[in-house]
Amino acid sequence: MQKDFPLPDRCAGLRALLEPAAIALIGASDDPARIGGRPLRYMLEAGFAGRIYPVNPNRDMVQGLKAYPSIRDIPEPVDCAIIAVPAKIVIATIEDCAAAGTKSAIIFSSGFAEIGGDGEAMQAQLSDIAARTGIRILGPNCLGILSFGPRFFATFSSTGDAGYAEPGPLAIISQSGAYGTHLYAVARSWGLGVSHIITTGNECDVDVAECIGWAAEADEVKAIAAYAEGIKDGPALIRSLELARASNKPVIFMKVGRSEEGAAAAASHTASIAGADEIYDAVFAQYGAHRADTTEEMLDIAYACTAGIYPSGNRIGLITISGGVGVQMADHANKLGLNVAPMPGQAQEELKKVLPFAAPRNPVDATAQVFNDLTLLGQNFSIMLDEGGYDVVVGFFTVVAASPYIVEPLLKELDELRERFPDRLIFLSLIGPPEIVARYRDAGYLTFEDPCRAIAAASALVGFGKSFAGTRPSVPDAAGPLKALPAHALSEWDSREILAGAGIPVVEARLVKSGGEAAEATASFDCPVAMKINGAGIAHKTEIGGVELNVATPEGAGQLYDELQTRVTKQAPDARPDGVIVAPMIGGGIETILGVQVDPVFGPAVMFGLGGVFVEVFEDVSFRLAPFDHEEALAMIGETRGAKLLRGVRGRPSADMDALANALVALSRFAAAHGDALASVDLNPFLVLGEGQGCLALDCLVVPGGVED
Amino acid sequence: MQKDFPLPDRCAGLRALLEPAAIALIGASDDPARIGGRPLRYMLEAGFAGRIYPVNPNRDMVQGLKAYPSIRDIPEPVDCAIIAVPAKIVIATIEDCAAAGTKSAIIFSSGFAEIGGDGEAMQAQLSDIAARTGIRILGPNCLGILSFGPRFFATFSSTGDAGYAEPGPLAIISQSGAYGTHLYAVARSWGLGVSHIITTGNECDVDVAECIGWAAEADEVKAIAAYAEGIKDGPALIRSLELARASNKPVIFMKVGRSEEGAAAAASHTASIAGADEIYDAVFAQYGAHRADTTEEMLDIAYACTAGIYPSGNRIGLITISGGVGVQMADHANKLGLNVAPMPGQAQEELKKVLPFAAPRNPVDATAQVFNDLTLLGQNFSIMLDEGGYDVVVGFFTVVAASPYIVEPLLKELDELRERFPDRLIFLSLIGPPEIVARYRDAGYLTFEDPCRAIAAASALVGFGKSFAGTRPSVPDAAGPLKALPAHALSEWDSREILAGAGIPVVEARLVKSGGEAAEATASFDCPVAMKINGAGIAHKTEIGGVELNVATPEGAGQLYDELQTRVTKQAPDARPDGVIVAPMIGGGIETILGVQVDPVFGPAVMFGLGGVFVEVFEDVSFRLAPFDHEEALAMIGETRGAKLLRGVRGRPSADMDALANALVALSRFAAAHGDALASVDLNPFLVLGEGQGCLALDCLVVPGGVED
Repeated sequence: MQKDFPLPDRCAGLRALLEPAAIALIGASDDPARIGGRPLRYMLEAGFAGRIYPVNPNRDMVQGLKAYPSIRDIPEPVDCAIIAVPAKIVIATIEDCAAAGTKSAIIFSSGFAEIGGDGEAMQAQLSDIAARTGIRILGPNCLGILSFGPRFFATFSSTGDAGYAEPGPLAIISQSGAYGTHLYAVARSWGLGVSHIITTGNECDVDVAECIGWAAEADEVKAIAAYAEGIKDGPALIRSLELARASNKPVIFMKVGRSEEGAAAAASHTASIAGADEIYDAVFAQYGAHRADTTEEMLDIAYACTAGIYPSGNRIGLITISGGVGVQMADHANKLGLNVAPMPGQAQEELKKVLPFAAPRNPVDATAQVFNDLTLLGQNFSIMLDEGGYDVVVGFFTVVAASPYIVEPLLKELDELRERFPDRLIFLSLIGPPEIVARYRDAGYLTFEDPCRAIAAASALVGFGKSFAGTRPSVPDAAGPLKALPAHALSEWDSREILAGAGIPVVEARLVKSGGEAAEATASFDCPVAMKINGAGIAHKTEIGGVELNVATPEGAGQLYDELQTRVTKQAPDARPDGVIVAPMIGGGIETILGVQVDPVFGPAVMFGLGGVFVEVFEDVSFRLAPFDHEEALAMIGETRGAKLLRGVRGRPSADMDALANALVALSRFAAAHGDALASVDLNPFLVLGEGQGCLALDCLVVPGGVED
Repeated sequence: MQKDFPLPDRCAGLRALLEPAAIALIGASDDPARIGGRPLRYMLEAGFAGRIYPVNPNRDMVQGLKAYPSIRDIPEPVDCAIIAVPAKIVIATIEDCAAAGTKSAIIFSSGFAEIGGDGEAMQAQLSDIAARTGIRILGPNCLGILSFGPRFFATFSSTGDAGYAEPGPLAIISQSGAYGTHLYAVARSWGLGVSHIITTGNECDVDVAECIGWAAEADEVKAIAAYAEGIKDGPALIRSLELARASNKPVIFMKVGRSEEGAAAAASHTASIAGADEIYDAVFAQYGAHRADTTEEMLDIAYACTAGIYPSGNRIGLITISGGVGVQMADHANKLGLNVAPMPGQAQEELKKVLPFAAPRNPVDATAQVFNDLTLLGQNFSIMLDEGGYDVVVGFFTVVAASPYIVEPLLKELDELRERFPDRLIFLSLIGPPEIVARYRDAGYLTFEDPCRAIAAASALVGFGKSFAGTRPSVPDAAGPLKALPAHALSEWDSREILAGAGIPVVEARLVKSGGEAAEATASFDCPVAMKINGAGIAHKTEIGGVELNVATPEGAGQLYDELQTRVTKQAPDARPDGVIVAPMIGGGIETILGVQVDPVFGPAVMFGLGGVFVEVFEDVSFRLAPFDHEEALAMIGETRGAKLLRGVRGRPSADMDALANALVALSRFAAAHGDALASVDLNPFLVLGEGQGCLALDCLVVPGGVED
């Protein structure tokens, strides 16, 4: 899964691609409307600071610049060659570039993997050239790069026709050129500044994951909006997300293809191995990225990130001049997992003194009367921030805040507040002419028309804050030196021994090889037992009559031993039984399922869910990449709806969550240690007993890599 | 729950309130900035067509109009009196109005129920005056009415300061004045026209429900956006929703107070008995209103309603110039329950002929290449509408559609399409200067910046279409003449007999009064039986040892009869056992729970959910008001996540959904027939067997109204 070229050179190549000082445009056209003419026009008009060398064998001059017959004729090796030539001569052109010492190239041309067949083969050649020569390639079939600081507009997108915006803090990194420029167009219409648009197209070499890593280290980037239909290099994405987290840079990621219909459309569009969609949920949760579903969600969050404040807590204070909107805001905050904590009792009394008609609990309904004396609103805010101690405050002031009588005195109150509480995330929901709204923004407040959108953005920022603040222990090492897994199918007993050796709790049991041993084992447990046929490759024991539950007496167990052999031999003549497992029947507890899957893109991932219909019918499961720590295990359990049952609601006892989390951590270390040598693990049922009583696998199966299930 | 004043007069009063020809302004001020001055200023500036009589005992003229000392001195009885006087003289003022033949009044003044105590008492007096004299009262504590057609601006909201917009098709009806005007301010900033803003405040008389009914019949209103924290008169709301549905007018309803925090805030804000929040979900589902959570959702849908097209099917066709956005759209449509049906095979071939590079399945990825020849896009659209037969089409064209080279030829293609398919709902997702976007709107297309918001609005309109098209049989009559419920607690056996008499399937059983009878009954069933103590008011039979399952023999049953009596007498000395119920043990099937609750606002509602932890822990239940029909029962089942289990997924057999729906219908008729005479019904467990095998209650309890549980 990892690239095989030495990383340092490749990094230099990526910088040359994204921050070039000298560029060539191969296929340069004098016609500023053509694909080969547009990048030149954009850069000349906008004033790109670097050196530009048009390449065109048929002309001496292109758009007023001296043209060169080929890349070899340019007086210096360029950082980046923009390639706007037909697909059929792209390979020769890239070879020329590499030979001329060109560090990177952007290929606009389409007609590669997206058309299958020959196109696919040609794209594979491009990948080979990149790997062999070290030239970094963006594309093919991409819209290129727009870098707003240096005005490096290596694109033929008509986006530039609408003018060249001032650079801002948001980097847009997208596989889809159309979506990347769409996102930019919306951001621009909102007045949200963008630093780069990088479109990666077919990704024969440079991919979205790597560009996120570059953006994480670029000073001018403060937030990253990424779009992908699928990622081919999982570890690269994880490295980049870790880099972004280490730099306190939020990553807002839209990964499409969630539904069956969407995944089908994605497959027909990119034909990439994208990995399972639910694993992306795990990756984003684990590495602190926010997964967005819509453009608006992406940009709302990106805008809120411009405040640069990422609270570490989730307490939200709500101020409103309309009780009804207060209710609506409380509903929405609650739905998004924010804590609408009531004001402390004393603070409520203070508020009541200031505003006798106010509802002081939270939401604080200041009523429209505060606008008669705006110092009251200032006091109100101040009490909330000081004594309420909220991490986030959202104030709903609608059109009132834009009234000409109110703007100046309100801003005076707010200026002072901003100074006193610089670290709090404060949103104002208001409606007014752009120039009035801008004054509130300039005063250091985030403004949203809709209070619920403000709350949704706040919730995402709280998520980033939690991720950035993570003083969590570094991810645990994979389990210590483990015996290699055998390269053949395992029996339940062998699986059990291996997992128990890795610290995963399993039910006490004995493997018996005769009726006599079965009777003896049953007697030793002194309670009813379960008897299960054992043998490598026997997966569906119940279906072939290989399981008996509630066997009450040693004599019964002795007789059943032979009967189980007979039944299994009859039902599954190919099975090679190897004794019978005798285990005590365990009552009570909650049945869950733990498992390991190996994702083709991200490697081993641990699954958790409630047992029975919860997994089978409701697909109520969560995933995490292995390995992970106790805290992550608890988060993973908490993501399932079934966690409610484990927590013990409505008078039910709570289950041993700590023991369950420990088992998940142990399973994750086991999975990580074996990596590709493992195909899957299935602990089903995995019984979680009451608090302090532990948990244990009642059945388990380990399938080594390369072994047919 | 129903108003006791004769309806026709009250309707006339409502019309007088909302469409007045002559009005008085009591407390009229010459200062156009004061509460008593603003309505006059707004109406004079905007040119209200009716007659205006200012009332002010201290002045001869107010803002240039002749003023009258009191309402009695006005030369005609006015349709509506706007009352802007202090709370303490409001009652006397209203009495004067009623005496002078005033048909309706709007009370701005606050200081009534919202402050509790005396205020509450004063508000009760207002309600009494309205009921006694027939004068209709809006408020108190409201922002009044803005009616944009006749420019009747009976409000002191500063909303008017921003100018007087042209009327449009949307009526805004809101308990909260601040939210109503906020909604209007957002609508105006979007260019979405509004016909009325009606704010009902404390609702001493006129309420949101009644105003929806009025708007349903007002020609100038095409869609209704309503906001409430709670409704006091459930049947009035239902009548109004029915009226709106009969007029094909969509109602988009925001009812806040979903979460615990929200409900707490709502209670402190209005102190109204709001009914259970989940019952609102039922009412909106049942009567075809769309429940919205955010302002944006409300207005997106309201805007889409301006097309006046409500599809009866849910097939959505997606056209995109970006494959990636196609995937995103397919995901979103799927999530919202729309059917992203693939194009018919032949149509796919045709599309391929027109656009060889296109992905023709659905989403149709036309790729940016169509913009080289826009007739191809027209053909593409045409094939989708003609042969794909989609009810809704959403096209994603982003900034490309606003390019100066493309607008004219694209509009030409689109004009023709609009003419050929006038009944299809077509959305374009595009970004451009307002004047360009307006051209697409003028051509009869709905335009959205974000394709996902277009899809969400489409999904709501499909919901309305389904509701409007409903050729469903009228709601079934309540069950025929039923014996009145006794006014005392019922035993399980009595409950069983009553429910069985109402057509609800119950398990075969016998009530026995001795050990001998118990043995005989057990023998007659010829299988293991369940034995349960019977008796009025014995609710928790298992806890007091009153239940034995799996009794295998007649002898055992005979002995257990006495033992059950002894146990129960010991554990619950107050219980008055009345025999034992003997019933066969039934295996298999899926356990569900059916119930009836009587909502204080909406009356009897039937509940459905899967049994066990599904109801208790996951609260996975749905409700419908009683009575309802088979189709509604199926919809109600389908709303629960648990329906997946009943439908039989992953190789599981499906359950007898028809029998279950029949049982729900029978229960709903029973509940409706008894109405307030019923407190609750509980069928738990209610076992649903395999397809064609029926369903039956294993345990049941009917609690008559006024009887302690």
